[in-house]
Amino acid sequence: MAFQGKKLINNPDDVVTEFIEGLVETYPGLQYLDGFPQIKVVLRADVERGAYDKVAVISGGGSGHEPAHAGFVGPGMLTAAVSGDVFASPPVDSILAAIRAVTGPMGCLLIVKNYTGDRLNFGLAAEQAKSEGYKMEMVIVGDDCALPPPRGIAGRRGLAGTVLVHKVAGAAADAGLSLADVAAEAKHASEVVGTMGVALSVCALPGQVSSDRLGPKKMELGLGIHGEPGVAVVELQPVDVVVEHVLKQILSQETQYLPITRGSNAVLLINGLGATPIMELMIAARKAVPELQLEYGIAVDRVYTGTLMTSLDMAGLSITIMKSDENILKRLDAPTKAPAWPVGSEGNRPPAKFPVPVPPSPSMKDDEILAQPQELCKQGCILEAAIEASAIEIINLKDSLNEWDSKVGDGDCGTTMYRGATTILEDMKKRYPMNDAAGTINEIGATIRRVMGGTSGILYDILFKAAYASLKQSRTVTANEWADALEASVAAVSKYGGASVGYRTMLDALIPASTVLKQRLKAGEDPVTAFIASSEAASAGAESTKQMQAKAGRSSYIAPDLLASIPDPGAMAAAAWYRAAALAVKNKLHGSKS
Amino acid sequence: MAFQGKKLINNPDDVVTEFIEGLVETYPGLQYLDGFPQIKVVLRADVERGAYDKVAVISGGGSGHEPAHAGFVGPGMLTAAVSGDVFASPPVDSILAAIRAVTGPMGCLLIVKNYTGDRLNFGLAAEQAKSEGYKMEMVIVGDDCALPPPRGIAGRRGLAGTVLVHKVAGAAADAGLSLADVAAEAKHASEVVGTMGVALSVCALPGQVSSDRLGPKKMELGLGIHGEPGVAVVELQPVDVVVEHVLKQILSQETQYLPITRGSNAVLLINGLGATPIMELMIAARKAVPELQLEYGIAVDRVYTGTLMTSLDMAGLSITIMKSDENILKRLDAPTKAPAWPVGSEGNRPPAKFPVPVPPSPSMKDDEILAQPQELCKQGCILEAAIEASAIEIINLKDSLNEWDSKVGDGDCGTTMYRGATTILEDMKKRYPMNDAAGTINEIGATIRRVMGGTSGILYDILFKAAYASLKQSRTVTANEWADALEASVAAVSKYGGASVGYRTMLDALIPASTVLKQRLKAGEDPVTAFIASSEAASAGAESTKQMQAKAGRSSYIAPDLLASIPDPGAMAAAAWYRAAALAVKNKLHGSKS
Repeated sequence: MAFQGKKLINNPDDVVTEFIEGLVETYPGLQYLDGFPQIKVVLRADVERGAYDKVAVISGGGSGHEPAHAGFVGPGMLTAAVSGDVFASPPVDSILAAIRAVTGPMGCLLIVKNYTGDRLNFGLAAEQAKSEGYKMEMVIVGDDCALPPPRGIAGRRGLAGTVLVHKVAGAAADAGLSLADVAAEAKHASEVVGTMGVALSVCALPGQVSSDRLGPKKMELGLGIHGEPGVAVVELQPVDVVVEHVLKQILSQETQYLPITRGSNAVLLINGLGATPIMELMIAARKAVPELQLEYGIAVDRVYTGTLMTSLDMAGLSITIMKSDENILKRLDAPTKAPAWPVGSEGNRPPAKFPVPVPPSPSMKDDEILAQPQELCKQGCILEAAIEASAIEIINLKDSLNEWDSKVGDGDCGTTMYRGATTILEDMKKRYPMNDAAGTINEIGATIRRVMGGTSGILYDILFKAAYASLKQSRTVTANEWADALEASVAAVSKYGGASVGYRTMLDALIPASTVLKQRLKAGEDPVTAFIASSEAASAGAESTKQMQAKAGRSSYIAPDLLASIPDPGAMAAAAWYRAAALAVKNKLHGSKS
Repeated sequence: MAFQGKKLINNPDDVVTEFIEGLVETYPGLQYLDGFPQIKVVLRADVERGAYDKVAVISGGGSGHEPAHAGFVGPGMLTAAVSGDVFASPPVDSILAAIRAVTGPMGCLLIVKNYTGDRLNFGLAAEQAKSEGYKMEMVIVGDDCALPPPRGIAGRRGLAGTVLVHKVAGAAADAGLSLADVAAEAKHASEVVGTMGVALSVCALPGQVSSDRLGPKKMELGLGIHGEPGVAVVELQPVDVVVEHVLKQILSQETQYLPITRGSNAVLLINGLGATPIMELMIAARKAVPELQLEYGIAVDRVYTGTLMTSLDMAGLSITIMKSDENILKRLDAPTKAPAWPVGSEGNRPPAKFPVPVPPSPSMKDDEILAQPQELCKQGCILEAAIEASAIEIINLKDSLNEWDSKVGDGDCGTTMYRGATTILEDMKKRYPMNDAAGTINEIGATIRRVMGGTSGILYDILFKAAYASLKQSRTVTANEWADALEASVAAVSKYGGASVGYRTMLDALIPASTVLKQRLKAGEDPVTAFIASSEAASAGAESTKQMQAKAGRSSYIAPDLLASIPDPGAMAAAAWYRAAALAVKNKLHGSKS
C-alpha cells in the first residue's frame, strides 16, 4: 500500500535546516555555524574557535536520525555535529568547516557510522584537515548484528550503538585525555558494541510517497536506519518474544560479534526508532534486563531507554548491548550537558528491586472490630435518631428521585441513594461507634464508599471524610463544631467536584444550609432553632434548582428547556436528609410525639 | 477505517505494570510501592518513609501519557506518581498509599489534571489523608485553551502544561518552602499556563480496535489527551500555519485564558503526543519562538521541546505557554534528577542567534593565484613528464576500462577516469606549481575532486590529500619520501574506503606497488629501478583481480562466476597510470628515445 506520511513540516526540502533552527532555539548551549543552511553544523556555543583545550569530538552523517547527532552536542559529549540532508552524507566542505571551527591544539576525533558515503566524506575531510596541520583521528562504528558477517566491508552498518561510542569518547576528551587516548577508547567501545533493530512500520521520507511493505500484521527484523528492508518480515509477535530473538542474534555464538560471555558485564540501550511511545520501550527494557541476567548470565550495569537514533517516523526499536568495564561505566556516567543524552540511568543499579512496603492506614487496624456500643450516651441517642430519620427519608424519596433523574440525568439517583441509606441503617446497628460522633461520621463515609459507587458516591464519601477530619478532635461535639464540620464538608465537595452555588448540584442545598447555620449560631440563636432554619434554607435551595441551567454533572449535557421546572435530584436528596435530621434532633431535644 | 494499532507490547492488560517495571529497571533512582501491581505508585528511592523533610509533591492520573507522570519523579520534581490503568483515574487506595509512603511532617501537595475522576479520587484521598493527620493541599490544573470558556466546571482539561506546574512545585518544595507556599506557587503556575493540541492520527488503545476518523489528509485541532475528538477536523496544513493558529487560540483576547500581553515574558513547551519525531517538534519550535516574539511581543525565556505528556501513540503535538517571571524561571531552571524533565533548556537564551563564522581554510587563499612556474626545475620536469604520461595512459585506456566495468560494475569507470585525466592535463599547464611537488600533488587532488565525482573520485581525492599531507614538509622530495607518501596514501584509501588486498579494488594494484617500492629502496636499490619494479608489482596485482571475488564496491553484488577472468577496472587503471609514471621517470632520468 503506497502512502504519503503525514508530517508536521513545511517544505519537505527544508526539514533539516528547520530542525536545526528549532534545536538552537531550544538549547541555549548550541549554536550553528555560519554558512548555514548550506553548511549544517551544530556546535557548542561555549567553545572558542581555535582555542579549545581538549580533544574535539565530531560526529554526523545523514539527517533523519534525530536527535542524533546534533542533540548529542554539549560539554562531555560531541563538540560539533555535521548534518547532511535526509539519509545523505554531509559534503566534505561541511565536515571541514566543523573541524576548523572547534579543533584546537589537542586535535580532533571523528566518529563515523559505517556507511560508504560517510566513511569517504569524513575520511577526505580528515585528510584535508591533516594537510592543514590539524591532528586528526577517525573511528568507524559498525555495530549491526542483524546480518551474517559480510564478505567484505559493506556489511556491518552503524546503528544506535554509535551514541554510546560518542558518550565514551566525549567523556574521555572532557577528562583531558590526548587524541590518541580518546581515539583508543572510542575504538575499543566500537569493538564491544552490538545492535539490532525491529520495526512495525516503514519510515516515510518527507514529501515522498512510501510503500508500506509490512501491512497491518507484520513486523520486520534486522533493519537499518535508512528505511532499507530488514533481514526478515514476520508475523507481529509479543514484545517479549521479539526481545528474546533480538538478544539471541546480538549475542550469537555463530557470528561472535561481541566479546561477551557468561559472567560479563554490559550496558543496555533500548532505542526508539522515531514513532515508538516510551511506554513500549520501557516494556521492552523490562524484558531485556532479566533475560540478559538470567538467560545469558550477563550483569546489566546500566539501562538507557529512550529515543536516541531514529529512522524518521519509523515505529520500532533497536536493542544495543555494550560490554562494560570500570572505565566505560565511568565515561557513560560522566556528566554531560548534551540535551539528548538520557539522564537518570547513571549510578549502580540495586541488585534487585525491593518494593517499598505499603504503609498501613493509621486509622484502619485489622484487629480492631467495630461495634455499636452497648449503651448510648445522650449525644449518641440524638445522632442515632438523626441518622435513622435521614435514611428513612431517602428511602421514602427513592421513586421521586428516580423520576426527576430520568428527566435530567440517567435515572438512577433514587436507586443509588436508596442503596446507601439502607446500608447505613444496617451498618449503624452493627458497627457504628455511636457515642463517638466523629467516628460515626467516618463510618458513614466508609459505608457509602462501599456500596454507593459513581460520582455521587465519591462526593458523599468526600463530604463525610471532610466532616470527620474536622470533627475528630472532639469526642462530644458542640453545635459550632458541627457547623464547622458542615462548612468543611461543603468546601471539600465544592473543591474536588468543582461546583458551587448555581451549578444545579447537591451544593445548592448544602451551601445555603451551611451559611445559615453559621450565621444563626454566630447571632447567638439556640442550636436546634438554627438547625431547623438551616434545613429550611436547604429545602429552598433545592427548590431553586428548578430554574437553573446545569453547569456540572450529567445534566450539563441536557438542553435548558428540558430542565425547566424539574429540580436537581441530588439537591433534593441532600435537602431531604438534612431536613429530616434537623427535625429528628428537634424532636429528640425539645420533646415531641414521635 | 477501523484498525488495530500495532504495538510492541505483550498482553494489552499488562501495559501499565510492565511500563513501570521497565521504568524502575532503567532508573536506579526510582522504586515502586509494594502492593504493585494493583497499586501502581512510583516513588523516589531515596525518600525515607515518614521522615521526608520537605513537602512531598505527588501527581498522577490515568496511564497512556508516558513519560508522564512517573518519568517526572525525582529530586527537584515529583516525590511520587500514582498511575491508573490506561486513561482511567487511579483508585483512592493507590493515591492514599502514595501519600502515606512519602509524606513527612512538612505535608503533601497533590497536583491533579482537571478530569472529574481524578479530581474526585485524589480529593477523597486527600480528605482521608487529612483525617489521618497528614497536612494536605491539592492544586487542579486545567490548561486547555481549545474550547470556549465552559459554562461550568467540566471544560478546561488538564494537558501538558501540568508538567510545568509539576516542575515549579517540585523545585519550590526542594527549596524547603512550606506546604502553603509550595501550593501557592503551584496554583499561581496553574493560572498562567495554557495549552492546545493538534493531531495527525488518533491513538490506538492497547488491544482495542480504533477508528481512524481522520483519514490520510486531515488533521484534528484542539484535542485532549485521551483520544477524544478535537474541536475541528481540517485539511493537513504546513506546520507553520498550524503553529500560528494554535498560538492565536492560546493567546485569544476573547477567552482571556492567559494573563499574557504584549511585553510579557513566557516559556514555551512544544510537546509530542507519543509518535511524533523530534525533528517535527523542533520545526514547530523554530516557528513558535519568532512568532511569539515578533507577532505578539512576548519575550520567550525558555523553550522546552520534547515528548512529555502523550496520548499513547498519537502523532501530533501540543503547544503550551506559561507566563514567566523571575521566580518561575528560577523554579524551572532548578536542577532535577527526574529523568523525563528536558535538560539543556535552562539559562538565558541569547537575544538572537549569531551564527559562528566559518573559519577559512588556511591553505586556500582567494587572493593567491596559482600558475605554473615560468621555468621548471629538474624535479619539476620529471614530475611533469610523469603526470603527462600517466594522464595519456588513462586517456588511451578509456574504452578498455569502460568495457571491463560494463561487465562487473556500472560501465563508467573509463569515462570517469578519462574526465579526470584530461582535466589534470589542462590544469597542469595552467596552474600546477610544478616546482613544488607537494603543492602539485595537492592540486591534482583538487582537480579530481572538482571533476571526477562518485566513489572513485572521493577515493582518489583521499589518495592525493594523504600524499600531500605526507609530502608537504619537503620542497625537494627524496625517493624515500615519495615511498612514504605512497604508503600514507594507500593507508588512507584503505582506512576510509574499508578495502584491503584481495577486495578487488584499486588497492590490489597500489598496495603491492607500495610494498615493493619500500622494500627495494630499503635494500639500497637505485630509486628508478625500484620504481619500475614497483610498477611491475602494481600490474601483476591488477591482473590478479581476475581471480578475485569482489568484497567492496559495486562488484560485490555480482555473482562470482560472472567476474571470473575480468580484471577489476579500478585496479587496472591504477596500475596503468602508475606504470606509465614509472616509465616516464626512467626515460627522463636515464635517457631514452621518447
